[in-house]
Amino acid sequence: MAAIHETLEWQGGIDGHLDLLDQTLLPAELVVLKLRTLDPLIDAIKRLAVRGAPAIGCAAAYGMVIGVREAVADDSQSFDAAVESVGDRLDASRPTAVNLGWAVARLRERAGKEPSLDALLDEAHAIKKEDEDLCLRMGDAGAELIEDGMTVLTHCNAGRLATGGDGTALAVMFAAKRRGTNFHALADETRPLLQGVRLTALELAAEDIPVDVIADSAAAGLIARGVVDLIITGADRVAANGDVANKVGTYGLSLAAKEHNIPMYVVAPFSTFDFAIPDGSHIPIEERDPQEVLAIGGMSLAPEGVGARNPAFDVTPAAHLAGLVTDRGLITPVTTERIKEVLG
Amino acid sequence: MAAIHETLEWQGGIDGHLDLLDQTLLPAELVVLKLRTLDPLIDAIKRLAVRGAPAIGCAAAYGMVIGVREAVADDSQSFDAAVESVGDRLDASRPTAVNLGWAVARLRERAGKEPSLDALLDEAHAIKKEDEDLCLRMGDAGAELIEDGMTVLTHCNAGRLATGGDGTALAVMFAAKRRGTNFHALADETRPLLQGVRLTALELAAEDIPVDVIADSAAAGLIARGVVDLIITGADRVAANGDVANKVGTYGLSLAAKEHNIPMYVVAPFSTFDFAIPDGSHIPIEERDPQEVLAIGGMSLAPEGVGARNPAFDVTPAAHLAGLVTDRGLITPVTTERIKEVLG
Repeated sequence: MAAIHETLEWQGGIDGHLDLLDQTLLPAELVVLKLRTLDPLIDAIKRLAVRGAPAIGCAAAYGMVIGVREAVADDSQSFDAAVESVGDRLDASRPTAVNLGWAVARLRERAGKEPSLDALLDEAHAIKKEDEDLCLRMGDAGAELIEDGMTVLTHCNAGRLATGGDGTALAVMFAAKRRGTNFHALADETRPLLQGVRLTALELAAEDIPVDVIADSAAAGLIARGVVDLIITGADRVAANGDVANKVGTYGLSLAAKEHNIPMYVVAPFSTFDFAIPDGSHIPIEERDPQEVLAIGGMSLAPEGVGARNPAFDVTPAAHLAGLVTDRGLITPVTTERIKEVLG
Repeated sequence: MAAIHETLEWQGGIDGHLDLLDQTLLPAELVVLKLRTLDPLIDAIKRLAVRGAPAIGCAAAYGMVIGVREAVADDSQSFDAAVESVGDRLDASRPTAVNLGWAVARLRERAGKEPSLDALLDEAHAIKKEDEDLCLRMGDAGAELIEDGMTVLTHCNAGRLATGGDGTALAVMFAAKRRGTNFHALADETRPLLQGVRLTALELAAEDIPVDVIADSAAAGLIARGVVDLIITGADRVAANGDVANKVGTYGLSLAAKEHNIPMYVVAPFSTFDFAIPDGSHIPIEERDPQEVLAIGGMSLAPEGVGARNPAFDVTPAAHLAGLVTDRGLITPVTTERIKEVLG
């Protein structure tokens, strides 16, 4: 991405470090974290300095390299014990995004076959490289959903800042733009952490895709008034039946989409599908710090003594979706059988 | 309201002024505007220093007193011409809230019969006093909708800060509390101007009603998870068929309420009903300054060059509502006929 720094990039060889863009400060400040140890990397995942299911997966993969290297450096742990304990800590850092556990599991498996730091770094690089390819394939699979003159609504940030590559939902927009399609984007601001206005608007503007930001709660009324032609979002976890956990607010969009027959597509790589989970009711929903709602940028909004609830995700039923856009093609209608056919 | 200043209060006689609480600065700062001329009063209405349909009506009534007094003071205009021009300016200050036009029309009519400043001030006082009574009656009409142990969700601020009295939606909560009902409130923060977290949370906490704030887009997911038992909001304008224009986001709540069979009530005095408008599609929707979305408290959120759309209201169809709570009783089901029976 020309205008913005790489989301995350390993620097050097096995003695190197992970450059990780701190997204909490965008667009006001561009700060790159130089991560050589596990604690600050886990902190970066927890406080959403890196976010977006595929990007969290990449960060966790490199986290295995950094964490195991740190643990075996002073001979306090064996390589195998380090892989286990570092993996457990990374697995617990955020509960909803499935790519995190998926990436950690891949590193564990590689370590089982090749117990060396070089093998771990090689596997992390492979995950990052694959993610770039998956993003391009999702973009291609979804690009023709966007037609000339459409207004396309998205929620949160499912772009380059959420993946190791072009993004998921935004990869579709970028691919449509590359094909010469002229369309207009609407970005939900996405409270509480404002990923839509801070990150998505930044990414779309950098590619000369015209974008207007809206308050999250303005979406339903604009959909009712016929302003929106298409809704595209990313996903944090997709259950076996196609139910989708994504940033809180996605479910409300799906209700408006259903009421007004506006097609809504969720874009996700195969690694975001969790076949161990039969449907959305089994997806754990992370509740985050109430202060994210009660303050913005350190400025307190609420009177003293007032609490908040802060679920970070919600679940959109498969039946509300026109389709799922994956790296292996478009899945429509969204049924367990069709998902198995395309991804099984 | 013990803990907060009066929303608006006339001080002195016909030479007096209007004390108006500047709500844009709450809860951080308590600033009371002392209004003696028309321009700053209209500015206060436009920038939402005073907001809420009934409170805007009261402010506009006193605005007629102040504006006509100012216009006739230097003999530049006749009393009648002043009533007409001041009324026109007030009518144009905000397009969606019907009480504004309703209050101005009452002052015009009184001036037609009694062309004196004293009569105008008397009529403005009468509107304010009536508003206090209306709020108490709405509270009584709706109090038994709230049962022990319920979690009640509200949107924006429909309380003491939105009226000349106890509020509309919050008057129902205050009445239930006075009757000894124990319940929990959820307040949508209500972007872009955050009336929920700044004002509603303040009013509820001041009356010891436990309240948690949520991001607007968290409501649908919490409703889906069974957390919410009842939804109560105010209204800016109710059409003859019961369609309701209210703060943007209300429509989205109604979709979630319908999907999950959660009863949703709108609380409004007779003066908020506009029988000249057959249904919601004819209600003008105010589009406000994009900067309200692109910045918070002067802090810019968006990258440079990114735009915003900022509709201030949306329209909820009568069919999504379990009932309307008015000063003349509960209207359920919400049909043109039932509305006529109760308010006609």
